Formats: sequence, structure tokens, C-alpha cells
Amino acid sequence: MRAIDIIEKKRDGFELTKEEIDFMVSGYVDGSIADYQMSSFLMAIYFKGMSDDESTTLAQTMLESGDTIDLSMIDGIKVDKHSTGGVGDKTTLIIAPLVASLGINFAKMSGRGLGHTGGTLDKLESIKGYNISISPEDFINQVKRIKLALVGQTGNLVPADKKMYALRDVSGSVPSIPLIASSIMSKKLASGADVICLDVKVGSGAFMKTLEDAKKLATLMVNIGKNCDKKMTAVLTNMEEPLGYSVGNSLEVIEAIDALNGNGPKDLMDICLTISAYLAIDAKVCKTYEEAITILNENINNKKALDYLALLVEAQGGDKKYIYDTSLFKKSLRVIEVKSKTKGYISRIDALKIGHGAMILGAGRENLKDSIDHSVGIVLNKKVGDFVNDNEVLAYVHLNEKGAFEIENIILEAFEYSNEVVTSKLILDIIR
Amino acid sequence: MRAIDIIEKKRDGFELTKEEIDFMVSGYVDGSIADYQMSSFLMAIYFKGMSDDESTTLAQTMLESGDTIDLSMIDGIKVDKHSTGGVGDKTTLIIAPLVASLGINFAKMSGRGLGHTGGTLDKLESIKGYNISISPEDFINQVKRIKLALVGQTGNLVPADKKMYALRDVSGSVPSIPLIASSIMSKKLASGADVICLDVKVGSGAFMKTLEDAKKLATLMVNIGKNCDKKMTAVLTNMEEPLGYSVGNSLEVIEAIDALNGNGPKDLMDICLTISAYLAIDAKVCKTYEEAITILNENINNKKALDYLALLVEAQGGDKKYIYDTSLFKKSLRVIEVKSKTKGYISRIDALKIGHGAMILGAGRENLKDSIDHSVGIVLNKKVGDFVNDNEVLAYVHLNEKGAFEIENIILEAFEYSNEVVTSKLILDIIR
Repeated sequence: MRAIDIIEKKRDGFELTKEEIDFMVSGYVDGSIADYQMSSFLMAIYFKGMSDDESTTLAQTMLESGDTIDLSMIDGIKVDKHSTGGVGDKTTLIIAPLVASLGINFAKMSGRGLGHTGGTLDKLESIKGYNISISPEDFINQVKRIKLALVGQTGNLVPADKKMYALRDVSGSVPSIPLIASSIMSKKLASGADVICLDVKVGSGAFMKTLEDAKKLATLMVNIGKNCDKKMTAVLTNMEEPLGYSVGNSLEVIEAIDALNGNGPKDLMDICLTISAYLAIDAKVCKTYEEAITILNENINNKKALDYLALLVEAQGGDKKYIYDTSLFKKSLRVIEVKSKTKGYISRIDALKIGHGAMILGAGRENLKDSIDHSVGIVLNKKVGDFVNDNEVLAYVHLNEKGAFEIENIILEAFEYSNEVVTSKLILDIIR
Repeated sequence: MRAIDIIEKKRDGFELTKEEIDFMVSGYVDGSIADYQMSSFLMAIYFKGMSDDESTTLAQTMLESGDTIDLSMIDGIKVDKHSTGGVGDKTTLIIAPLVASLGINFAKMSGRGLGHTGGTLDKLESIKGYNISISPEDFINQVKRIKLALVGQTGNLVPADKKMYALRDVSGSVPSIPLIASSIMSKKLASGADVICLDVKVGSGAFMKTLEDAKKLATLMVNIGKNCDKKMTAVLTNMEEPLGYSVGNSLEVIEAIDALNGNGPKDLMDICLTISAYLAIDAKVCKTYEEAITILNENINNKKALDYLALLVEAQGGDKKYIYDTSLFKKSLRVIEVKSKTKGYISRIDALKIGHGAMILGAGRENLKDSIDHSVGIVLNKKVGDFVNDNEVLAYVHLNEKGAFEIENIILEAFEYSNEVVTSKLILDIIR
């Protein structure tokens, strides 16, 4: 077998065999296939695509390149969720305790990422003492005990994906649906859950710009998962504005706590309840969607889900008082108001611009070594569909030293207006 | 400027600026752009193509990466020709002396290539003493004196093309029309001629499989040349069989000498006269095609062109007696006949199979270090359109040690038959 023949076969639009995909991936990982061959191969995939079978094989082959997490010592069904990345996305902080409160195992390992705001782990570290570095053994034991763990990655998961993603990033093949799907699914498969729900964001600020592309990506990921005997759901959600009101690490944890107290914003709750309901159905705890929604709302109203968040924080060394008293979270030095300079119905709040603003304040990382300021961020005062007059507060900016100079303009530029009433739909489709 | 942005721009189908193309090519040559970025860039070009302007810029940028040959010390117009590679193609051996016999400067430097049979230089080395290694100064002086030189490449011509071609070869972007056109034209532009005629082969055995693709390639090369102030012609020729009857180094020189004695096969003469006529017109020696053909035929009939071939051989240290007595060429040990096993009109003689047969006999090189056996080869006895009976001689194989076992079957497999009369057209189009 020769790499050049496989590159040309894909370039010419033919379907690759399992042996051919294995040859390319394992050869790339062991260094026998050069990066200049892999990069043109990936570009050929960008243009010619991959079938469901090829994408499944690619995900499995990447998965087999490293360690996997064995959750078999935990009795019962294990569930996981994944989001393709949204600004203000604190859904894991809500869904994980909600689902655990139904008696379902939620065992999630995350890597630290780059981005406008920190990842779930960074957000949790706003809570004093919360420790993400747990040994695999303690991780398993914690899930056995309290149904719930949110920890940092240990071991060498999917090194092929790391190497291939880094190459795609510098050689122009990032936005390929089969490559994105295989990359995400290889990591999800490596983390050992039986039931997976994916939140695929759609919109100009998201990775998938159109509903059509998002459906393709979601369908492919669902099919890859099903081919590997996982129960799969993908929820397609609109990203025409940040999710909820808060963007920034501690600000988002506070909003999540509010949500588990029954005071969550509608868009955030819609997504969290939908994803949690499908996880509950696939974990065989509920029979119907309606039944799931009823029980989930009960566990919010009776604070059972909130107590699970406190259990999680306590189990991982954090101060659980934060969960019951959000005034304990460290505050930024100042809060400034950003006011509208025009009037009208808000038609869009560019999530990427808001995310960029949060990043400038210090809420996110440009490089993996950057440290995060947990207290800073942006709290919107208005959402899409709201009417604003001149000089009304659009957002509150929580800031320390960084970003004071630029932030107002960044936020003003994120808001778009319409003269007519604007309605928006958050959940665009469900693929199972 | 960043390579990744330029890769993505091309991937997304936008036209690149001169600065962007320069940045990629010069960065690749100086090592500041990695081969994995260049290979995915080339694959993106494979899929998205390049405009005439982009292709011209690419050819010029590659050209500027190395030495160029300055023919300005030679008075008058300098002409050159190029073929995209055909089996049995000995046209340079005929066209060069023919054109020189009209008083036109024909100054050609060639690289040694890989292929089924040797290149023009290898063929000339069948003549005892012929020396292809001439200093640039002697090269210029020889053209001044006898209008004619066929020598090996000196200097570092178009290193960008060498590096990029080698990368394309291992990363799957060889068959891209703009990349082929830029590669060929960068080398033609570097060799300094004012008038260039290209022979673009079409057919299943050629680089361009369809007339449509061949027209695209030819048109693009003609446009690149015109954009660089060259007089350009491209002749599109059918490669449904080898050119002429002989395939192999000394066998092809002998056929070329026969042609200059007025005994050339029709297909070979048609191409040589057509190309020579357009060169003569663009060199302003003839006004019309008909006038050119008349003079060219005169110079064959009066042996003036043959004498120019002898002048060339003598000027470069060869034994010019070979030109007037082809029995002096070294013979192979044996000649065997390959006879038909069927009857019918010959509809096709697969040129690649015949070329492969010649290679197996030792006439060509698989690796640049391989040595060539000048005496071996294949002389067809039948051409497309001929009727053959069972057991008629299809070809004579001139061989030494190599290939005796396989050659008969290779040749038999190259012949295809039809029950009906077959007509074929050699010159498919002219683009100027």
C-alpha cells in the first residue's frame, strides 16, 4: 500500500477501505507517512467528502491510536454530552447535575481548550477549591458514589486527532464535515459513554454557518455513533446570540446556579431540558419526552438538581457554599454599563463579537499557557427580540484591568437592530 | 501575509494576487513555508483551478526562482518547441534541422528525463561522439555559427518547479491543468526563445485524456506565453498510437534521418511540417502556411535539412557519417517478429504499452541513474487503419538480453482491432 495511491483515490472521488484509512492514520501517527502527504490527503477529503462508513472508520481508527476510558466498572448506563462550541454555553453545568439527579451516570472528561471564555473546567474553577485533576480510579469511584464527575483529561486520548487537527489548522482543511465529525466522535467514543447527546450550533458565529451544513454534520455524527453501538441524539440550535445572558467564567456558573434554582433564561432552559430529556430517554429512565420534561422540572423545583451540583463540587474538593450563596464568587473590580445609541428591535447579537469582548477582558485563552480571569465577563441586559430605546443598558461589563478601552465599541458593534418585531427559534431540529 | 490565509482563499475559490502567489512560491523555495502547507495549497489548486492571470504569475514566479538563459547575444528570432511527451516522438530531431535550414535559430536545452524511451538527448547519444555537455558560451556561439544546438541543461533553471513538481508527485496534485501549464511554461520561458510551439498530446495514453482537457491546457499555455510576449502556437495531436513506426533511441534517430531523406511516415511528417511551418511563420521567414510547407518540403527534397542535422552532430563532436549511413548505428543482438493472432482493421495501438515494452527492453529509464541501451526498441510493421491477417508481422523487436520473455505479449496486448475500416485524425486542433 502506498500513501500516494490512497491520496489519488480519494482525490478522484472513490470510497476508501478500512485498510486504506488505517494505513493513512496509523502511518501518520508513527511518522511513516509524511505531513505533506497527510495535509494533501486531508485537503482532498475537504473537497471530496467521506461516506458514513469512511467517517466511522476514520473515527474508530483515530480512537484506537491512544488510550480509551473504560467505564465498565460503573453499573448502569453512562451518558455524555458535547457542544460544538457556543458563546455563553454553560449547559454542561446544568445538564450534568440535572441528569445525575435522575439517577443517571454522567461521567465527563474534558480537555482544556482555547476560546473566548474558558471551558466547563475553567468555569468550575471559579469555585474555590474545585479540583479537576482526579486519578482515573477516583473518577470511577466518584461516579459510582454520586453519579457525577466533571474532570480534566488523563491519559493519552486520541493522539491521532491531536496531530491531524494541528495539521488541518495550518493547512486549511478544518471546515470539512466528515473530518469535524470524525474528530469529535473519536473523542466522544474514547470517553466511554453509552448515550451521547450533541449540541450542534448553527449560525454565522458558529462552525456550521447554515442549517443544511449543520444537519449534515449532526446526521453524520449520529450515524458514526450508531455504527459504534451508541445511543445518539443531536440537537441543532441557533447561535444568533449568546446562550443566556452571561458570558464569562464565574458569571456563567452563577447563571447556571440560577437556572438550577428555577430562574434560568428561556433559551438556556430550552436547550438544557431538551438535551437532558433525550439523555433520560436513552438511559431508559423515562419513556416519553413529556415524562422526562416533567421529572426534570420537578428536580429543579425541589432543588434536587442543585444539590447534585453541590455534591459534585464537594466531591472534587470545592467549597459547596458557593452553590447556595453566589455572593461568595470573587467579583471584578468594576462593572460598567454599555448603553444603546439607537432604538429598535434587536435582531441579532453577534456571539463571536461578544465572545471576543469577553476574551479581551481576560475571560478566555488565546494560548494554552494564558491564565484566565474568572471574575470578568459580560452580562447582557437585552436579548434578540427585545425592543430597546436610545440610551438603554444593553450589557453590563464586569472588568478588571484589561479591555476597558475597547469593550464598549465591541459590544455596540455586536448588536443589530430591526424596525419590525423579531422572532427567533432556538431549537432548529433534532436528529436521532 | 500568512500561508494559511492564502491556502484558504484558494480553497474557497478566490483569485490570488501576484503578491500572494509570490509569497507562496518564494517562501516554499526558501523554506519559510512548510511542505505540508504547499502540498495542501497545490491540492486546493487541483480542485479550484487558477485563472490565466494566476497561472501566468505562477509561471513567472517559478521562472524567477532560478537562472534563465540569455539568448540576446544571438541575432534574430530564436525558436523552441516542446512536446507533452509521446511514445515514438522524434520530432525535435526533424524539426530542429528543418527550421535551422530556413535560417532560423533553434537553440534548445533539455533536461534528461524519465520515460519509456530516452529523451532527445539520449537519442542523439546513439551517434558516436555526440556531446550534450556544452558550456553556455559554446552553446551561444554554436547557434550563432550553425543556427542550431541541442544540449543538456546547465545552470539552475526553475528550482521552484523542481521542488514543487517533486512534491506534487508524492502528494497527488500532478494532473492539474494550471499546475502543468505553469510548470511547462516556466521552463520554456527560462530557456529564452521568442517563438514557442507546443505539441500537446491527446488520448488515453497521454497526460491529457480528452480533447477538451487538452484544449484547456493548450489554451492556457498559449495565453501564459502571450502574456510574457512570446509568439505561441499549440498543436493538439492524437496519441492513439506511437508516432511513426520506431520506438527506441537509435531506431528513432534512424527514422528521423529517413524522414529528412523524404521517406518519413505520414503521421510523423504531418506533425513535423505543421510545427515547423508555424515556427517559420512566427519567426517571420514565411508569410503563409502554404508558403512554409512548400519551402520545408524543398529543404527535405534538396537534403538541406539533412545537412543541418549533420552540421549539428559534427558541431557537438559526433560522427556525422552516421547521418549519411545509418548502417553505422550499433545494432541489437537479435530482431524477433511479433505476429498477429487475429485479423481485422487495427483500431488502436496502445502507445503506453508499446512504450512500456521498449522500457522493458532497456530503451528507457525508471530511475535517473539507470543506463540506456541505445540499440533496442520496437519497429511497428502496421499502423492504425491497416488491415492485418492472422500471422502477419505486427512489429519487429530489436533486443539484447532484457525483456525477451515478456515482450511478445506486451505488444500483442497493445493492438486493438475492428471489423470495419478505421480512419484516424492526427492533428486535432491548432491554438494560436
